[in-house]
Amino acid sequence: MSNEQENVVNSPQVENGEDGDFVDPWNVVGKSDSGVDYDKLIKRFGSSKIEDDLLDRFEKITGKQPHHFLKRGIFFSHRDMHRILNDVEANKPFYLYTGRGPSSSSMHIGHLIPFIFCKWLQDVFDVPLVIQMTDDEKTLWKDLSVEEAMKLCYENVKDIIAIGFDVNKTFIFSNFEYMGQAPEYYRNVIRIQKCVTFNQVKGIFGFGDSDIIGKIAFPAIQAAPCLSTTFPAIFGEKKISCLIPCAIDQDPYFRMTRDVAPRLGFPKPALIHSTFFPALQGAKTKMSASDPNSTIYLTDTPKQLKNKINKHAFSGGQPSVEEHRKLGGNCEVDISFKYLTFFLEDDAKIEQIRKDYSSGALLTGELKKILIDTLTPIIQQHQERRAKITNEELKLFMTPRKLF
Amino acid sequence: MSNEQENVVNSPQVENGEDGDFVDPWNVVGKSDSGVDYDKLIKRFGSSKIEDDLLDRFEKITGKQPHHFLKRGIFFSHRDMHRILNDVEANKPFYLYTGRGPSSSSMHIGHLIPFIFCKWLQDVFDVPLVIQMTDDEKTLWKDLSVEEAMKLCYENVKDIIAIGFDVNKTFIFSNFEYMGQAPEYYRNVIRIQKCVTFNQVKGIFGFGDSDIIGKIAFPAIQAAPCLSTTFPAIFGEKKISCLIPCAIDQDPYFRMTRDVAPRLGFPKPALIHSTFFPALQGAKTKMSASDPNSTIYLTDTPKQLKNKINKHAFSGGQPSVEEHRKLGGNCEVDISFKYLTFFLEDDAKIEQIRKDYSSGALLTGELKKILIDTLTPIIQQHQERRAKITNEELKLFMTPRKLF
Repeated sequence: MSNEQENVVNSPQVENGEDGDFVDPWNVVGKSDSGVDYDKLIKRFGSSKIEDDLLDRFEKITGKQPHHFLKRGIFFSHRDMHRILNDVEANKPFYLYTGRGPSSSSMHIGHLIPFIFCKWLQDVFDVPLVIQMTDDEKTLWKDLSVEEAMKLCYENVKDIIAIGFDVNKTFIFSNFEYMGQAPEYYRNVIRIQKCVTFNQVKGIFGFGDSDIIGKIAFPAIQAAPCLSTTFPAIFGEKKISCLIPCAIDQDPYFRMTRDVAPRLGFPKPALIHSTFFPALQGAKTKMSASDPNSTIYLTDTPKQLKNKINKHAFSGGQPSVEEHRKLGGNCEVDISFKYLTFFLEDDAKIEQIRKDYSSGALLTGELKKILIDTLTPIIQQHQERRAKITNEELKLFMTPRKLF
Repeated sequence: MSNEQENVVNSPQVENGEDGDFVDPWNVVGKSDSGVDYDKLIKRFGSSKIEDDLLDRFEKITGKQPHHFLKRGIFFSHRDMHRILNDVEANKPFYLYTGRGPSSSSMHIGHLIPFIFCKWLQDVFDVPLVIQMTDDEKTLWKDLSVEEAMKLCYENVKDIIAIGFDVNKTFIFSNFEYMGQAPEYYRNVIRIQKCVTFNQVKGIFGFGDSDIIGKIAFPAIQAAPCLSTTFPAIFGEKKISCLIPCAIDQDPYFRMTRDVAPRLGFPKPALIHSTFFPALQGAKTKMSASDPNSTIYLTDTPKQLKNKINKHAFSGGQPSVEEHRKLGGNCEVDISFKYLTFFLEDDAKIEQIRKDYSSGALLTGELKKILIDTLTPIIQQHQERRAKITNEELKLFMTPRKLF
């Protein structure tokens, strides 16, 4: 672990690098039009880049092609993935943990990314998955009552179920519910809160003296699901390794947890980090559910989708058709192209589009049309699956129980 | 409420007065041999002295003589007791809330005081009582694991049950258990944690940057039982007034809660404060369960009790019998006399002892014998009742349920 920089105590604002990118769990602001510099972020956070050797091992062990998120660097960074693969080779169990903060009733297409990847990992490795809905976090950070946050939580859970998770392998929980259903959860929260000082969360998260005590205590709530005993219905008293797929802005929580877990007799959680899903207006910020203009919601109609992309998607094209034909477009900053790298699986097609747009053969309007034609069925099918989810199904996913 | 000083934000160490007495929930150190100056404490904390008019109202409304703890100033201070009596007159319900931090397997005789008084209030007013066992607090503050603190908790609960509470009107709960049994508890904790900043708990409790986040968040855990919705099995969704009998060192928690409760739509908790039960060695500090020499445990044998009082009880008598007969003893500092004011109910006897000891007619050894003869049967009867408590009875007291 000598290449890891986990103990960030007394290094406030460690996320605010010299290059001016700002990344913490609540804000992502890049300086360049092409977005955050992820190589610098890896160096600053002390994680490891996903290199070809890891992808090769992945393929060798699972017998499956790596997901296009892996091949295209959308999941680009990790901590201890080799240890997880060692466990798989040794037939040792592990589980997946990810989460969602329900701050709006509708999720956006960027929110799908970690869940799509989780589903793929769940299918490939045949392992349990726990999904934490941080309705408590949203109550603490936003102008939301407990009841409002819980309502948003249930709406979001339906969107998550619609992604296609296996009910026999997936437990989705609201903190406001599950904390009152399993005493082991609170006990682990207290164990973690005993290991972390205010100075530490100040250094890691930038909290200050005028912050509410709920925020200061919250990191332990997000950390506790990394300890398998938080889920006695699933794991009993076994101490099992955990792998967390998440956007890299969540890493500070788990750097903290990796420091604490061994002191409590648990393995450090492993991580696999994604880049941010950029806003329609450009890659300087990530897509936010609370800014309708920067966001494609999973509830958008085909017409809304089309309008948003045509009107707001930041273009890497030239001011006029003539100039575009002559100079070509810039895929590095073009949002439509970026979105296609997330949602268009066909590698050959992506390469052709990149070539044609860069050369000027493909115009901005034509590129936008490809994106619209790609996203429309994805969103429509999502809406159809979501509409069929019953309250019984929702309740089953959210019931603490044995997983298989 | 203009005479109340509840908002102590940005007044760190408000408990450390000019007179040098130090009082907070973890430390009590008086400067004088006669103990903490309680009149100054009332002024500093901003509570109200229990005056004769309150005792008269008590007697008028309940038709009972005030408890000797009230008549003798052992419960000496209050907040909003008149409002509670107004409620009683108007046939409005209220409930009692008190607590105990289980830091040792054996409780001491000082721990009996708030519980004896609670039982009396419960009997007189015929109201529900909730008792919080802060095993989480003890894990956070002491070198105790979750499991150890829970074990001490159950031992202490047996001692509390042995005091004679009515199982139909009393709910005793371990935080490590109950937090995982009622989601409403955690939801109220978050509601409170959203209303209180680090600056505030720093001002009220003296927390610093190097304190663990568990301590910083804990005041909300002790505050939540003041909100009746924390106990849906007992109160449903009703918002009912709460009266807290406790030693005055716990007041900071409830000053904070009185600030928060109205913002959440609840009545401010009312309080009735006791003095501290002094250590055997003298009234400068309170009795502590972790210092065996300063402490009479509820598990002590008659012989241990006798030895401890004879050896360690600080005496207000004179160095020699001759001087004592001539000058008399000092009841203000004599620990044996102080203990009798707690445990000897007969007012006439107490007055006779005070007179005889002050005049020198009663020698220190004789006074100590009176105390030994008073305490021995109290402790023995307690031990007998405690020995009879079954695990089923313990479980019943600790089950969330409707009270009558």
